[in-house]
Amino acid sequence: MDQRDSQILIPEENGNQSAQMSKGFIDGDDPARIARTEVIKGSKYPSHERIRTIRPSRKALESVSPGLLKATDAMLAPPHGGSRIWFYTKRALIGAPLATSQAEHERLTKVKALAVLSSDAISSVAYATEACMGILIFAGLSSLHMILPISIAIIVLLAIVAVSYSQTIPAYPGGGGSYIVAKDNLGTNAGLIAAAALLIDYVLTVSVSVASGVQNLSSIPFFHFLNAPHLEAFLDVGLVIIITVVNLRGVRESGSIFAIPTYFFIVSAFFMIAVGLFEAFVLHHQPLVASFHTINNQAVHATEGISVFLILRAFASGCSAMTGVEAISNGVPAFKKPEAKNARTTLFWMASILGLLFGGITILTLTNGIAPDPSGTQTVIAQLAAHIFSGPLAFFFPLFQLGILLILTLAANTSYADFPRLASLLARDNFLPHQFAFRGDRLAFSIGIVSLAIMASILLLVFDGSVDHLIDLYAVGVFLSFTLSQSGMVLHWWRLRTEQKSWLRSAIINGTGALTTALVAIIIASTKFVSGAWIVVILIPLLVLMFMGIHAHYKRVERERTTNIPARPADIKHLFIVPIAGMDRVSIQSLSYARSITDNVIAVHVAMDSDDEQRVRAAWKQWRPNIGVDEKTELIIIESPYRSLTRPLLTYIDTVHELYSDYTLTVLLPEFIVGHLWEHILHNQTALSLKAALLFRPGIIVTSVPQHLPSRMQDMPEPLPTP
Amino acid sequence: MDQRDSQILIPEENGNQSAQMSKGFIDGDDPARIARTEVIKGSKYPSHERIRTIRPSRKALESVSPGLLKATDAMLAPPHGGSRIWFYTKRALIGAPLATSQAEHERLTKVKALAVLSSDAISSVAYATEACMGILIFAGLSSLHMILPISIAIIVLLAIVAVSYSQTIPAYPGGGGSYIVAKDNLGTNAGLIAAAALLIDYVLTVSVSVASGVQNLSSIPFFHFLNAPHLEAFLDVGLVIIITVVNLRGVRESGSIFAIPTYFFIVSAFFMIAVGLFEAFVLHHQPLVASFHTINNQAVHATEGISVFLILRAFASGCSAMTGVEAISNGVPAFKKPEAKNARTTLFWMASILGLLFGGITILTLTNGIAPDPSGTQTVIAQLAAHIFSGPLAFFFPLFQLGILLILTLAANTSYADFPRLASLLARDNFLPHQFAFRGDRLAFSIGIVSLAIMASILLLVFDGSVDHLIDLYAVGVFLSFTLSQSGMVLHWWRLRTEQKSWLRSAIINGTGALTTALVAIIIASTKFVSGAWIVVILIPLLVLMFMGIHAHYKRVERERTTNIPARPADIKHLFIVPIAGMDRVSIQSLSYARSITDNVIAVHVAMDSDDEQRVRAAWKQWRPNIGVDEKTELIIIESPYRSLTRPLLTYIDTVHELYSDYTLTVLLPEFIVGHLWEHILHNQTALSLKAALLFRPGIIVTSVPQHLPSRMQDMPEPLPTP
Repeated sequence: MDQRDSQILIPEENGNQSAQMSKGFIDGDDPARIARTEVIKGSKYPSHERIRTIRPSRKALESVSPGLLKATDAMLAPPHGGSRIWFYTKRALIGAPLATSQAEHERLTKVKALAVLSSDAISSVAYATEACMGILIFAGLSSLHMILPISIAIIVLLAIVAVSYSQTIPAYPGGGGSYIVAKDNLGTNAGLIAAAALLIDYVLTVSVSVASGVQNLSSIPFFHFLNAPHLEAFLDVGLVIIITVVNLRGVRESGSIFAIPTYFFIVSAFFMIAVGLFEAFVLHHQPLVASFHTINNQAVHATEGISVFLILRAFASGCSAMTGVEAISNGVPAFKKPEAKNARTTLFWMASILGLLFGGITILTLTNGIAPDPSGTQTVIAQLAAHIFSGPLAFFFPLFQLGILLILTLAANTSYADFPRLASLLARDNFLPHQFAFRGDRLAFSIGIVSLAIMASILLLVFDGSVDHLIDLYAVGVFLSFTLSQSGMVLHWWRLRTEQKSWLRSAIINGTGALTTALVAIIIASTKFVSGAWIVVILIPLLVLMFMGIHAHYKRVERERTTNIPARPADIKHLFIVPIAGMDRVSIQSLSYARSITDNVIAVHVAMDSDDEQRVRAAWKQWRPNIGVDEKTELIIIESPYRSLTRPLLTYIDTVHELYSDYTLTVLLPEFIVGHLWEHILHNQTALSLKAALLFRPGIIVTSVPQHLPSRMQDMPEPLPTP
Repeated sequence: MDQRDSQILIPEENGNQSAQMSKGFIDGDDPARIARTEVIKGSKYPSHERIRTIRPSRKALESVSPGLLKATDAMLAPPHGGSRIWFYTKRALIGAPLATSQAEHERLTKVKALAVLSSDAISSVAYATEACMGILIFAGLSSLHMILPISIAIIVLLAIVAVSYSQTIPAYPGGGGSYIVAKDNLGTNAGLIAAAALLIDYVLTVSVSVASGVQNLSSIPFFHFLNAPHLEAFLDVGLVIIITVVNLRGVRESGSIFAIPTYFFIVSAFFMIAVGLFEAFVLHHQPLVASFHTINNQAVHATEGISVFLILRAFASGCSAMTGVEAISNGVPAFKKPEAKNARTTLFWMASILGLLFGGITILTLTNGIAPDPSGTQTVIAQLAAHIFSGPLAFFFPLFQLGILLILTLAANTSYADFPRLASLLARDNFLPHQFAFRGDRLAFSIGIVSLAIMASILLLVFDGSVDHLIDLYAVGVFLSFTLSQSGMVLHWWRLRTEQKSWLRSAIINGTGALTTALVAIIIASTKFVSGAWIVVILIPLLVLMFMGIHAHYKRVERERTTNIPARPADIKHLFIVPIAGMDRVSIQSLSYARSITDNVIAVHVAMDSDDEQRVRAAWKQWRPNIGVDEKTELIIIESPYRSLTRPLLTYIDTVHELYSDYTLTVLLPEFIVGHLWEHILHNQTALSLKAALLFRPGIIVTSVPQHLPSRMQDMPEPLPTP
């Protein structure tokens, strides 16, 4: 019993006593590397100590109870090299890793949740009115007053959808996204369609909102230089990277960072509306609808008459105000407890803010008679702000512009909250790669966040920052997912009709939501089909097919993956094949390893010529008696007249495997490990290619015997016994 | 004893009788897959049959004698897939693979060797005279007559070098390249310098000769369209590829293919000289030196006076006629037997042809008073041919032009013969990656051929086909290697002075060669230093450093590579760690495999949360009694609050390894094999990254248990015994 044994080995009868009793320490120069262990001695195998439990405790591992260890945060930093640099860079960018148990602390307060989850919806007030008027103006300036009834219709629709979703939240406190609700109630396919529509929507939202923020910035005279070719696109991608890094810091922190600009916009927008209403109705007693005029009184020629179709198109365009309304209902688990109650309150606040801002801006547009700029240089909301903040209030105009700019860019952030969560749900259900379900260092779904950023950046680079025409694409998806979700809720209440008294009321509310959003979806699809909605109509089924393919693969893997090893040790008959290049040190060690396991060991050498054959046979005869490889191990030499090494070996191994299919065949391959990349090309990758080929053969086990160049003198191998 | 045993097993006492007696066949549906084997029964290990020798005989393997198999050509074709298509494409391009024993048949006859090994040298007569005159003309037309003494000096130098090399050939019948001779006699460094100089020379020769061939072609009016941007460079690379493919077909076949154009040029050049001499001295009785005139009598202004430096520069330029003279001496082993005698004869012929052609062309240039074209549109040799082949002989002019074009392009082919051979010698001596020493399918050094082609193509593409200015680079290298080789020979004879009577005569011949070539090397280096020779002066030491780095690495690998497994089976104490994801089929099979080898098995599971921990512990308790994994195998669970999988596992394995360093530690990892690339991203590559990390730890053996998705129903696994 050596010194190590006396300190760390405990007799079997004490084996079950707690780990606290067995804190033996080994002497060593590095106290951090000291390990305490529990090993059982005196087994019936005389030549082998029996190791029962080893519980190491470097700083990185902590012993909790016998058989249970815990990884500490000391293990997070890689010991050395490039990965350590990467670790600290990442830490500086996104912060220290958080333990799973800290998830509770990462929840959002209502104030932060409103900022994170409604920036998309609220930002749409910056362009929804203009989108609507941009269609109406085809029938001339005089038809612009139709904005009032259309806006009222949109606000009513918003109220219906909000009430609908406020019913979904308590029914699905685990996150009532359209995917979950549709899948639960309408079946997997409906769920996948909703999910596909939403994923597309999220990617488009990021691209479009970031690009429109930058476009707004570059339209300010001071920033005109941004119009240089490709500069905008790169600025867009830069912004996407910043938003991505902030989101990788975790939900709570991104909430803190992005709350400020969101509230800044909300406050400044309400301030503008208050000032505008005061000016219009208190100071000047204006009529509700003034006569419209364009900037510099540019002429506007009506290109078509006012028609139901035109009004429907205008309504469909105005519905862009509704994108992002589902975000809160999707994100219930991100709220602090009580989740459902907090989410409902936040939803109420969001819908109210959105409705009031949209309504207020529409009314002020009417009273000030502001029409879209035919030259496209100034947005309706900018004209309005310039109108209202004139004279002594002119100081507020640039501040309000800054607010618009920030909220437009941050609309992207809502997608960053919802895309990764939806992707993680899909991954959990085997519809996306499982990586999407893993929480990263900061408990955010890192893969989802990074994937979203990559796809949005690709869109921005491909379209060189001009993604306006993508706006038409995504309203279809949004309303499709609304409809699926609301219809699902109707079925949900129908199922609960015996248990819940108020089921009918709830079903009617969700039914109204479903009908109206379905109507809007049809309107948008039909009016916008040619200008882009068709792309979504093609993409959604493709995505659904992808989900299904992934699902089928995972199911098959779960059910069928196999290897041919018997499940009981006694049933295993070992057969080892050891390809050797000669009787070098590593070949001898490999043969010794194989022979220590079984007598059934075949050494194989592929000889390039007869000299080679003679040489290896002579060395074999010389070494065999001296080392453990006795006459039970036979040497097979394969002459390879065509100088191929892997092909003859593979054929031989295949033949043996086929012939002795009741044996468990292990092939021992030396794997030569070199430190530098350039050293790789100095070694023929025979072992690697052989291994790649062998792994595709079911039931052949491949053991890699790694060989190293010792880096320190004390690691130098002792000489082998000479023959 | 089952049916298989009764047919293929032979009792031990018959074991040594010849394989002819043991042709037992197994029943099987595919006769080609029948195997005959020799297995010894009745060992002292009752539970395991002892397999002694298995000699399979698919069509691909042939049994020669007990323990000796031979791979047949049936094994060359891969069984299926993309590699099979590649195999047949390659076969169509470069021909069927040749067995090593066919090497003798691949030798060259003198006629073919002359074509292959002297095309470089002989092609230089097409430009050497002009290169020389191009310098002289700086001193005006009147100084061009200096071409006569300079040419005589060059021919004398050629004679000295040729005689020198004809002494090297019998002294080094294994290939007396400058590398070997210098290394043997002057030391490794001198050898490496010579090798570096030659390798650079070969790459430059390929680029320059192919490019000049194409340039000559595009200067013919019909082919002017080739001057389109980048077209020439692509044509150059296309030619390089063709020459490469032909060379990959093997030395003999490339000799046959390329002999025709070489002899075509030699014959047509001699014909031109004969006609020219007849016209000049028989028909017209011209004086030897006519007065020079340029095309269209364009004015030539002397920019400098005639000086020793100018004459030396002209001489240095003319020495480009000498490049390629060493090729035959390098290539002795490529000749049919008797190699040395055949090589000497071929060298004599080459030097004579080269001397006669160069001399003849110089004389005719003088008698016809031809000066280099100041506009550079027509070469001196083309002017000369146009002069001579005038009137009724005009028919021969385009034929002669074709001959020049072909020989210029084929000069590259000499490098294709010498570069791979030199690289293989360097690889054999551990100065280049060993791949360079392997003979490919057609017994050619494929890697060397392909490397040469790639480097030459890169040069051509980078310089867009204009590689004229590279010509200055390589004469330094050529003469440096001449000098080293000849000096080495002087020392060689000195060493043999007691054994060989004629040593002094030989030493004097080689000494004269060494002195003159050293002088030329100095002249070239000093006159051409600024215009490019400096690049070679930098490149050579860099290459030598690379050779030494590679050598140091290989030496270290040969001496030191190691693994920590004891060399005697009895000394090995096994310890297995089996990371498991749960109690799934493959985990159970892996545990069973480990337990069949040793009792020292530790199963490790990394738990992401406590649910996970409970689940695995429960499954473990349920399964353990039912399958072979008994209470001797302990389960360790590591809680990982930071959701890292590999880091805790690695730390645990490291600790165990450190603590039980006298055990041979094997880590069993499942390796999941999927058929399609897209399926890869569906699986977390935990096992792979773990393995990569483990392989860098000396002494940890990694066993991959491959798992597959069965592709056919009959491969479906049987259900495991239920707990």
